[in-house]
Amino acid sequence: MESNINIGVIGYGYWGPNLVRNFSEIPGAQVKTVSDFKPELLAKVQARYPKINVTTDCRDILTDPKIDAVAIATPVSTHFDLALAALQAGKHVLVEKPMTTTSEQAMRLIEEAEKRNLVLMVDHTFVYTGAVRKMHDLIATNTLGNVYYYDSVRVNLGLFQHDVNVIWDLAVHDLAIMNYVLPFQPYAVSATGISHIPGEPENIAYLTLFFENNLIAHLHVNWLAPVKVRRTLIGGSQRMIVYDDLEPSEKVKIYDKGITINGNSESVYQMMIGYRTGDMWSPKLDMTEALRTEGLHFINCIQQSDRPLTDGKAGLHVVRILEAASQSLKKQGRLIELNIAEVAA
Amino acid sequence: MESNINIGVIGYGYWGPNLVRNFSEIPGAQVKTVSDFKPELLAKVQARYPKINVTTDCRDILTDPKIDAVAIATPVSTHFDLALAALQAGKHVLVEKPMTTTSEQAMRLIEEAEKRNLVLMVDHTFVYTGAVRKMHDLIATNTLGNVYYYDSVRVNLGLFQHDVNVIWDLAVHDLAIMNYVLPFQPYAVSATGISHIPGEPENIAYLTLFFENNLIAHLHVNWLAPVKVRRTLIGGSQRMIVYDDLEPSEKVKIYDKGITINGNSESVYQMMIGYRTGDMWSPKLDMTEALRTEGLHFINCIQQSDRPLTDGKAGLHVVRILEAASQSLKKQGRLIELNIAEVAA
Amino acid sequence: MESNINIGVIGYGYWGPNLVRNFSEIPGAQVKTVSDFKPELLAKVQARYPKINVTTDCRDILTDPKIDAVAIATPVSTHFDLALAALQAGKHVLVEKPMTTTSEQAMRLIEEAEKRNLVLMVDHTFVYTGAVRKMHDLIATNTLGNVYYYDSVRVNLGLFQHDVNVIWDLAVHDLAIMNYVLPFQPYAVSATGISHIPGEPENIAYLTLFFENNLIAHLHVNWLAPVKVRRTLIGGSQRMIVYDDLEPSEKVKIYDKGITINGNSESVYQMMIGYRTGDMWSPKLDMTEALRTEGLHFINCIQQSDRPLTDGKAGLHVVRILEAASQSLKKQGRLIELNIAEVAA
Amino acid sequence: MESNINIGVIGYGYWGPNLVRNFSEIPGAQVKTVSDFKPELLAKVQARYPKINVTTDCRDILTDPKIDAVAIATPVSTHFDLALAALQAGKHVLVEKPMTTTSEQAMRLIEEAEKRNLVLMVDHTFVYTGAVRKMHDLIATNTLGNVYYYDSVRVNLGLFQHDVNVIWDLAVHDLAIMNYVLPFQPYAVSATGISHIPGEPENIAYLTLFFENNLIAHLHVNWLAPVKVRRTLIGGSQRMIVYDDLEPSEKVKIYDKGITINGNSESVYQMMIGYRTGDMWSPKLDMTEALRTEGLHFINCIQQSDRPLTDGKAGLHVVRILEAASQSLKKQGRLIELNIAEVAA
Repeated sequence: MESNINIGVIGYGYWGPNLVRNFSEIPGAQVKTVSDFKPELLAKVQARYPKINVTTDCRDILTDPKIDAVAIATPVSTHFDLALAALQAGKHVLVEKPMTTTSEQAMRLIEEAEKRNLVLMVDHTFVYTGAVRKMHDLIATNTLGNVYYYDSVRVNLGLFQHDVNVIWDLAVHDLAIMNYVLPFQPYAVSATGISHIPGEPENIAYLTLFFENNLIAHLHVNWLAPVKVRRTLIGGSQRMIVYDDLEPSEKVKIYDKGITINGNSESVYQMMIGYRTGDMWSPKLDMTEALRTEGLHFINCIQQSDRPLTDGKAGLHVVRILEAASQSLKKQGRLIELNIAEVAA
Repeated sequence: MESNINIGVIGYGYWGPNLVRNFSEIPGAQVKTVSDFKPELLAKVQARYPKINVTTDCRDILTDPKIDAVAIATPVSTHFDLALAALQAGKHVLVEKPMTTTSEQAMRLIEEAEKRNLVLMVDHTFVYTGAVRKMHDLIATNTLGNVYYYDSVRVNLGLFQHDVNVIWDLAVHDLAIMNYVLPFQPYAVSATGISHIPGEPENIAYLTLFFENNLIAHLHVNWLAPVKVRRTLIGGSQRMIVYDDLEPSEKVKIYDKGITINGNSESVYQMMIGYRTGDMWSPKLDMTEALRTEGLHFINCIQQSDRPLTDGKAGLHVVRILEAASQSLKKQGRLIELNIAEVAA
Repeated sequence: MESNINIGVIGYGYWGPNLVRNFSEIPGAQVKTVSDFKPELLAKVQARYPKINVTTDCRDILTDPKIDAVAIATPVSTHFDLALAALQAGKHVLVEKPMTTTSEQAMRLIEEAEKRNLVLMVDHTFVYTGAVRKMHDLIATNTLGNVYYYDSVRVNLGLFQHDVNVIWDLAVHDLAIMNYVLPFQPYAVSATGISHIPGEPENIAYLTLFFENNLIAHLHVNWLAPVKVRRTLIGGSQRMIVYDDLEPSEKVKIYDKGITINGNSESVYQMMIGYRTGDMWSPKLDMTEALRTEGLHFINCIQQSDRPLTDGKAGLHVVRILEAASQSLKKQGRLIELNIAEVAA
Repeated sequence: MESNINIGVIGYGYWGPNLVRNFSEIPGAQVKTVSDFKPELLAKVQARYPKINVTTDCRDILTDPKIDAVAIATPVSTHFDLALAALQAGKHVLVEKPMTTTSEQAMRLIEEAEKRNLVLMVDHTFVYTGAVRKMHDLIATNTLGNVYYYDSVRVNLGLFQHDVNVIWDLAVHDLAIMNYVLPFQPYAVSATGISHIPGEPENIAYLTLFFENNLIAHLHVNWLAPVKVRRTLIGGSQRMIVYDDLEPSEKVKIYDKGITINGNSESVYQMMIGYRTGDMWSPKLDMTEALRTEGLHFINCIQQSDRPLTDGKAGLHVVRILEAASQSLKKQGRLIELNIAEVAA
């Protein structure tokens, strides 16, 4: 087909193969070239996808006029330069999370994409899962009532990163989910954590995010846990969610539980707090692979000149919090303001 | 028997019945009198234990020369006055946790007990469970290697307290356990949290405790969770523990897992971090009811003039941290030093 | 109160204490006398319930004109004689399950109770749990569609019985539940099993029950399992239930799952079987202790001259199946007809 | 490499792709040709493995003199004809389970392979998993003591088969595992079950297998269950195993639990049965994909002229039991002897 979007994928390490596989199967798209500086990874591409070009020089992608869009799956520290070069070469960009290493870089990319009318999308994959989309809908339709808290545990053994701490590697997922499902943005963050390997980044961290409207969020990430846990509680005034991503099918459970308050008493000691327990239900979820849904959305945004759900601004919000959390982490929990207004401007 | 220790129990609300039941069944002890200001609770005592005296005035216990020891199971705010009066009346004291509302009060009780050579014990019940004693032994025998972190989640729906926040109600359990099983004391704390009911104490809180020696602890407590969780991870350089108190039998699991580091490389990027996975095992635990073990220990300490495992100093350590955590909580995570030296003095 | 029902409890071993505790707390009833041939058990009654009379001779209960009803919690082999004597003495009877050791005995008790217009109730406790009553309602309102199967696993370590095999001890629970929730009675049974201790009754057994209307049931009972399992699947043409009695709260889960058949094809090879997956939900259950609900029902039946839900006929149905299953067990699975017509006559 | 074993794969439906993928990655082997009568499946082979030949006529494989071995992954009803033709063409054979539809066919294949000195291997995949090999070793080294029972539940929703009942589809896995891990062969089988779709094979079945030496086995298979379960209990006089194949890592747990018998009493009523509870442990398992281990074993057997672990005789044992179970199923549990002696002859 003439009108197919041609995609170049830069980086074929951990995530690149998933991008190539999904874009190969999406109607309206085709992967034209894959670049990686390791020839042995390119050999895998050739063995599996004989029609895809491979190169060790990503400039071959950036300068190819037939390539419409670039997907970047390289280490975080290279995201900014590659994405900027791609935008400047007139390519639409899908960049891995976290978007960049600083919010200044993120803002620069947003500006460049807007100036050129190009799609800039951040690969916040979880946003495109059936589970997260269901939770978004539940909150958007006020099923939980007022949202009281978002509380996530994301721990496992490995994979230690050398260039970023555990917050940039794992908490980024929760921040992307929160940015999508929660009705508000946090105004400040306090983070604590530690590194157990001298000279290496923090491998355990805890973030508390403060919001207006009585909402609080907490993220708990750890590369050195004996068991894998992916569990989020979202509490509301009417109902509460348990989201366990390791459950094979019932990933999202909604509990019709909460408290009732008899508030018109004169003293708090006489204030009666009651506990309400009702049914639990677990809705059927769309089980489409998230990256397929996301890839289709990327292609569609390019074709329709639409703004993606996880656009540059979403990426910037997440990077802003990651920056602030890392600052707080160095100062053992000191509260860091997020200057959301500035971001929103 | 003449030599039986006679016990008076003050408070027959939530925990008092457990104290009375256990002391009634322990050889060498007998409950002589129970006091509570609610007559309907005393009626329950009479129906079930016709030989026990009941009174609405706790002074009947404090002034009874035949009573050797007093167990105090009243609201926290009353602990200090009642315990001090009991010690001044020459009684040995077992007091509910948290020991007092301030560390000054705790120090005052310790001083009074020492002056009078009386046993002062704090009811840190979990310390007397088979699970916690097993974890203590595993750490004491260096089975975990260097302890890297202690990480606990203790959440459920209810019971909201009016006079203390969720830290004083739930985190107190973990602090008591940590004081027993960890080889070090924390030097500072950062706490965050929120109250979702106007005018009421915080119902969600997160504590990070900083230690020397590369150790960190984190406690996560919540009165407003849709599910009950009681799960602690303890990570070490050699092995790691998962302690799930809701498991009916295998409460403690030891994972022979960890990382290995090839440290003699020139750059961190070349430093190889390997992941080691071995067997898991779950040791048989002593399933004796903790309060029975604890009651026997209390009686034995009185008879042998011994210092209990959970003595006034253990109680003070916990109160000191609770105090500091509440301070930090009010300041959204600001680091509060614990002045352990002063405590140890 | 003059109009209180006076109850005598015969047997204070494993289950008797639960009967005494519940009848002591039920309005309209009071336990007047407890008998057991072990004086040490009676001492426990006296310590805990000073107002209840105790005796080692159950005839003191049977001949006491002030006693209206007798609850029998003795070994199975004694049920018939004790229940018959109680009925002949004009007492209403609540007898432990299994009702008797033979169906002839069960029929004799039914006859005696009917002749004398007395309440004869069998203690099929599970029928009075919130979970089983909910499942009954779901099936009765056709929520499952046509019921396809009932499949239960009930295994644990201990308690080995000397006088009855594991079918009479554990499968009896499922048979009582099935008798209540299923719309039909089985017409035949095939059972297999084995004893691992020479001279002792079978400690593992498997029962298949055949019904008309395309329904099958299977029970799996074992006294020698390393883990405790109490899990039942009930499959229907529209929905399916998982009932896990060890779950603390969500004991009953309803899955909107099933198959769809495109049946108008010419060959089975072209018949399309589709799989339908929808929501799961777990309804709130009444958490009242089953024995309290059951005790209230017993008292109410006596006062209103009503027929209890678990009457003699329900007990007879269960005993009839137990008899046939034990016969089949001896013959390694040979099908034994149940002659339901005869029972129903 | 000249000495590579050339493999032809017949059938590219559900299992064929796994065979092709594994044999493509095994040193010493290469897939030369794949046949399937559906061109659209062959197109997938070509897209993914451009060097492999494809054909809709399996005779192209059977007559190719360069092909040394044939892997057969077609419907059961075709196994015998294809395997016989392959052996007669001088090819080594790896055939899907169940090996054939009758034991006569299985014996005929064994005979043909022996006559021609060819390797005949049945794809009992589970035998090559780390979990099953660990259980084999535990039993072989007498860790369990005397094996008392093997009890498996293997249920899920779908995939309904049209040509074989659920026993041939699911119980075959357990029979293959039992044949490998248990020290004895069963002498008889009793099976029950039902079909819920008119004209279709049984979709629920229960098998009891009788052994000498106080051993019993039970298999529970179901295509119409709301949840997926893959759980086996193996009880022994010294220890017991829980094998849960759905656990991500701790698939095998060994419980140091059991009963102790004080047997020298005069009456069974005085015989004391005690319960022993000790540690549980879960050994580290080899996580290599089973089909890779199996493929390597097949290649090795061909190169060394060795007899495979899952040879024709193992396949025959399983088919013999499947035959007998299906017979018993039609007669509602009637015991069917297995004539093992004849098989062994």
